[in-house]
Amino acid sequence: MLPTAVIGLGYWGPNLARNFSASPSTDLVGLFDLDKARLEGIGDLYPAARRFETAAEVFASPDVAAVAIATPVSSHDSLAQQALEAGKHVLVEKPLADSSAKAVDLVMTAERMGRVLMVDHVFVYSPAVRRLKEIVDSEEFGDVRYVDSVRINLGLLQHDVNVMWDLGPHDLSIMDLLIGRGPRSVIAVGASHAAGEQVEMAYLHLDYGEGLTASAHLNWLSPVKVRHLLVGGTNRSVLYNDLDRSEPVKAYDRGVSVEPDPEGRRSLLVSYRSGDVISPRVSTQEPLSAMIEHFAECVATGAEPMSGGTQGLRVVQTLEAADESLKLGGKRVEMS
Amino acid sequence: MLPTAVIGLGYWGPNLARNFSASPSTDLVGLFDLDKARLEGIGDLYPAARRFETAAEVFASPDVAAVAIATPVSSHDSLAQQALEAGKHVLVEKPLADSSAKAVDLVMTAERMGRVLMVDHVFVYSPAVRRLKEIVDSEEFGDVRYVDSVRINLGLLQHDVNVMWDLGPHDLSIMDLLIGRGPRSVIAVGASHAAGEQVEMAYLHLDYGEGLTASAHLNWLSPVKVRHLLVGGTNRSVLYNDLDRSEPVKAYDRGVSVEPDPEGRRSLLVSYRSGDVISPRVSTQEPLSAMIEHFAECVATGAEPMSGGTQGLRVVQTLEAADESLKLGGKRVEMS
Amino acid sequence: MLPTAVIGLGYWGPNLARNFSASPSTDLVGLFDLDKARLEGIGDLYPAARRFETAAEVFASPDVAAVAIATPVSSHDSLAQQALEAGKHVLVEKPLADSSAKAVDLVMTAERMGRVLMVDHVFVYSPAVRRLKEIVDSEEFGDVRYVDSVRINLGLLQHDVNVMWDLGPHDLSIMDLLIGRGPRSVIAVGASHAAGEQVEMAYLHLDYGEGLTASAHLNWLSPVKVRHLLVGGTNRSVLYNDLDRSEPVKAYDRGVSVEPDPEGRRSLLVSYRSGDVISPRVSTQEPLSAMIEHFAECVATGAEPMSGGTQGLRVVQTLEAADESLKLGGKRVEMS
Amino acid sequence: MLPTAVIGLGYWGPNLARNFSASPSTDLVGLFDLDKARLEGIGDLYPAARRFETAAEVFASPDVAAVAIATPVSSHDSLAQQALEAGKHVLVEKPLADSSAKAVDLVMTAERMGRVLMVDHVFVYSPAVRRLKEIVDSEEFGDVRYVDSVRINLGLLQHDVNVMWDLGPHDLSIMDLLIGRGPRSVIAVGASHAAGEQVEMAYLHLDYGEGLTASAHLNWLSPVKVRHLLVGGTNRSVLYNDLDRSEPVKAYDRGVSVEPDPEGRRSLLVSYRSGDVISPRVSTQEPLSAMIEHFAECVATGAEPMSGGTQGLRVVQTLEAADESLKLGGKRVEMS
Repeated sequence: MLPTAVIGLGYWGPNLARNFSASPSTDLVGLFDLDKARLEGIGDLYPAARRFETAAEVFASPDVAAVAIATPVSSHDSLAQQALEAGKHVLVEKPLADSSAKAVDLVMTAERMGRVLMVDHVFVYSPAVRRLKEIVDSEEFGDVRYVDSVRINLGLLQHDVNVMWDLGPHDLSIMDLLIGRGPRSVIAVGASHAAGEQVEMAYLHLDYGEGLTASAHLNWLSPVKVRHLLVGGTNRSVLYNDLDRSEPVKAYDRGVSVEPDPEGRRSLLVSYRSGDVISPRVSTQEPLSAMIEHFAECVATGAEPMSGGTQGLRVVQTLEAADESLKLGGKRVEMS
Repeated sequence: MLPTAVIGLGYWGPNLARNFSASPSTDLVGLFDLDKARLEGIGDLYPAARRFETAAEVFASPDVAAVAIATPVSSHDSLAQQALEAGKHVLVEKPLADSSAKAVDLVMTAERMGRVLMVDHVFVYSPAVRRLKEIVDSEEFGDVRYVDSVRINLGLLQHDVNVMWDLGPHDLSIMDLLIGRGPRSVIAVGASHAAGEQVEMAYLHLDYGEGLTASAHLNWLSPVKVRHLLVGGTNRSVLYNDLDRSEPVKAYDRGVSVEPDPEGRRSLLVSYRSGDVISPRVSTQEPLSAMIEHFAECVATGAEPMSGGTQGLRVVQTLEAADESLKLGGKRVEMS
Repeated sequence: MLPTAVIGLGYWGPNLARNFSASPSTDLVGLFDLDKARLEGIGDLYPAARRFETAAEVFASPDVAAVAIATPVSSHDSLAQQALEAGKHVLVEKPLADSSAKAVDLVMTAERMGRVLMVDHVFVYSPAVRRLKEIVDSEEFGDVRYVDSVRINLGLLQHDVNVMWDLGPHDLSIMDLLIGRGPRSVIAVGASHAAGEQVEMAYLHLDYGEGLTASAHLNWLSPVKVRHLLVGGTNRSVLYNDLDRSEPVKAYDRGVSVEPDPEGRRSLLVSYRSGDVISPRVSTQEPLSAMIEHFAECVATGAEPMSGGTQGLRVVQTLEAADESLKLGGKRVEMS
Repeated sequence: MLPTAVIGLGYWGPNLARNFSASPSTDLVGLFDLDKARLEGIGDLYPAARRFETAAEVFASPDVAAVAIATPVSSHDSLAQQALEAGKHVLVEKPLADSSAKAVDLVMTAERMGRVLMVDHVFVYSPAVRRLKEIVDSEEFGDVRYVDSVRINLGLLQHDVNVMWDLGPHDLSIMDLLIGRGPRSVIAVGASHAAGEQVEMAYLHLDYGEGLTASAHLNWLSPVKVRHLLVGGTNRSVLYNDLDRSEPVKAYDRGVSVEPDPEGRRSLLVSYRSGDVISPRVSTQEPLSAMIEHFAECVATGAEPMSGGTQGLRVVQTLEAADESLKLGGKRVEMS
């Protein structure tokens, strides 16, 4: 049982607390939030967990082996650094940090201290995405040629981050899982229509080299909610629709064998190979619960997390490049 | 009854012939195609229409007052020029021409000859798009802030044009109708995955100035068919889903009144104003039939076509800029 | 090329004419309708087909080998009898006749005269229903346990027949195809809400014996259009959704293996065997065209039609029993 | 703060406990279940609530003012009687009892003791059903002519009740809310395909007199999940789709003004009045929470519950008549 403390009890922290408390592999031993009332409120639900006065106390406590950080992005770096330095294993809410320099530091500190650093890329642990990954990795699928993602709805406008840093980590971490490397260059265009402070809708275009491209439409202002991620392969395609509870994943046996159109001069016929659509069974395990088991297992066995510092860093690097592209009016930004 | 001849009887020409024949305002008096067998086949359905030997003969015929051109894009310009010079009114399949220079020439010739030049932007005449336009123009809607369009499916790969020139005129002509002017700059990114000849999937980002932006995802390789066009306004939003036969247009009384989130520091609450969704009745008139009535009416009254040379030129200019951006790897291209 | 005449040119007749004219196996040689204007209008489209003055003339003509009858139900019997007696092969619009006694007579006449008698159960020839049949007949499906059909929309109210006789033949003919025999008893309940003349919504419950049951909800008054047919088998289930163009048939690998609920005393867990859903490719051939090829083939080869007099009679017998049940307030009516 | 104890902690009881604990109007003061382990497990979540040894102790406790009963149906009557006799207010899980005689007794006891008796018809308190009720009661809707409900999915097979007693109370309580009276007669047909013990799929047909009818399809064996309730009125219709999270309620301005079809003899044209579809905003309040507030309010003010003994009794009477009809092979059973 991994004794864990949760720092930050705003929107996401209470979910982490609930899962650390319920998991057979972890123990919720501590809680902290700057907001005292919030700390009391959540604390009442977990009488066995200690309510710390400061974050420093959490890091100093010998009863705490792991820390989950669910605070505003700007504080991820500082808190995670302190926790790692104090010898704690760390789970950080996405994104890992608000700059790639900080993210690199975190990865290095974790390595130096020999502690697990994991990022809360929760979609990576969803049963549907695991299925997606299996399909994409299968021989019949062929090679990935493109990913197209749409994540739009009427959402909360954030003060401290734009829509790319808020919603983007979901799509970027799924793409990272499927592709296994980061993009070479990024183009981002966006707009701020409502509050004027932060970009509220954005389109990202990632070039992974070798003919592989990915795009994402991220939007806080859409009256309709869409959660589509389409992966096109040389032989098949697969669609992940996070809102379709009965058939979240659909594999299409539809390829793009190209033949001349018998009718004539101007077009090629894209043939539907067989045209069957298969929607595999997807389990209903809660992604957050799976993630926490994985965290405990990595701590116990020293295994590399599926969403470790490396993946977290790649996501931050991509977002950083996207921010720069946005600032430059959509100029392509190369990633070193 | 406007005596009309149809030139080009491939995919779209027969539909034009059928509608010119059935319309109470027009008369199908002539047919021409380079492919003799095709000319015979379609000709048999319209015994009253003359089968011409050459396009020049069509233009020379005093019995023909108007010509519809449904040939490959590269020949639009030359055929339409000859027709206009011969004093015919002209309806050209979209896009108007394969370069803006040629499109400009066509507009000028039409003006000089005092003839109607209309482009077959057929979606502009669909009852759903007419409804969309009414909603967007209504006072309650506020100002258009963005348009997001998705037009993807497993399609025919074209030899002579890329996916932008094939599918793009649909979305660009709808955007032109809604916004009433062309974009100031264009970014286009795309990829060629299947046949390697032409770009088969592309994303266009248009900046109209004054904070108004539009994007379109065009794709011949998608296993799923999507036809969404979302218009976000300052007070309301409206979605046009061309595949939803029972509710193609949905107006959302959802705005983006921004208020501080009572929960705290990090986010603003986007309030749903009332949240009602209204799906207005949409008539089932065939868009092509409405377009042909409009063509005949413009010829009769001298009225400006809704999809005349001006609109057709703006669409071609945008596509041309998009091609250039594509060639430059997604660089923003200003439109003069 | 089977020389065929079409009698009755109201709603359905013109579709028959178009298909008999276009088919490579048949020739449209004659047309007849009591309404002269209608006969002229349709006749103009098929200059090669003779416009008959009376039905008797059609039957007397040596140039006509087959007759398609698309007149009001009450006249099916008399016209089909005359046609068969005159030695013509006959295709009758559904339902075969307005009473089982008349239907029996027709079957007997056809047999006596050695002519093909086929009923226009057009759904039986749709690619989706053919797929449905294949799945239901496959070994993995197990035995059919139930069929549940919903066919509702805002429709035309008929003067001469109620909703069961109008929409019911579609579902009953599909059920007949899948099950291969008629029901043993029928319960029908219904109501007349709008015009008061005819029952406009009805529920049919058919007992086929051996634990196999089927139900159909037929409704002209529904604001939403639904076309579902669900077939439950011992091992699998399959859904036919006629309105889902991309996935009209879905086979569910979901059985009803019953196990005790680990949670307790009160319930049994229905296990999803694997839970995969497969949506097979379905061709896009027009059902009516397939039906007419089949008709021509039966005439040529003497094969039994898939929707012959036998099937047509069973549908009429079921409708007749349903009418009786309706009249008796929902009493179960046994079919001999 | 109404001090409440929950008896029965199987599937539904824990939800009640959670809501009684969280409500500002109630206090969770006691828990009881025959299964000691279950009592401990749930008890640990609510340290402030007393764990009773027997139900009798609950009823005897002066600290308990109200009791919620979530035990198997067969025990509802006995437990609720004891609770009422002991002067407690009572909330009973649906259905109220397993026979109408017992339900009548409960209603009478509650009246004699002057205590609130409420049934957990939780759908009656869902925001979508409240909206449905408002629409149906509005002047523009006209009179209700029919209700058609479909509640099917792959579900738990119950040992102690059939599918009608398990799923039926949901639909019957909604119908009771909309119509305000019970049906005059019932026809029920059903089948047992899987386990053979209990009827697993059933169709109920209710006649409310004055031309108003209702039907429900209830099914534990369907591979697809459907939750539709359609209400047809003289002027409008409304659909409640419990699975459509974004638009659960849709009002159709589609009537059935009947006019002769200009085309002819055989049909009447049902005109779409305007055809607009309105999907009103529906709040996201949890129905169970709303129900518990209502329970506390009825106790406090003496108001009649929306789902009191009267409504609970009507539902049980209908189910009882349905059971009888089922046993008689679908015979219509009159309700006195």
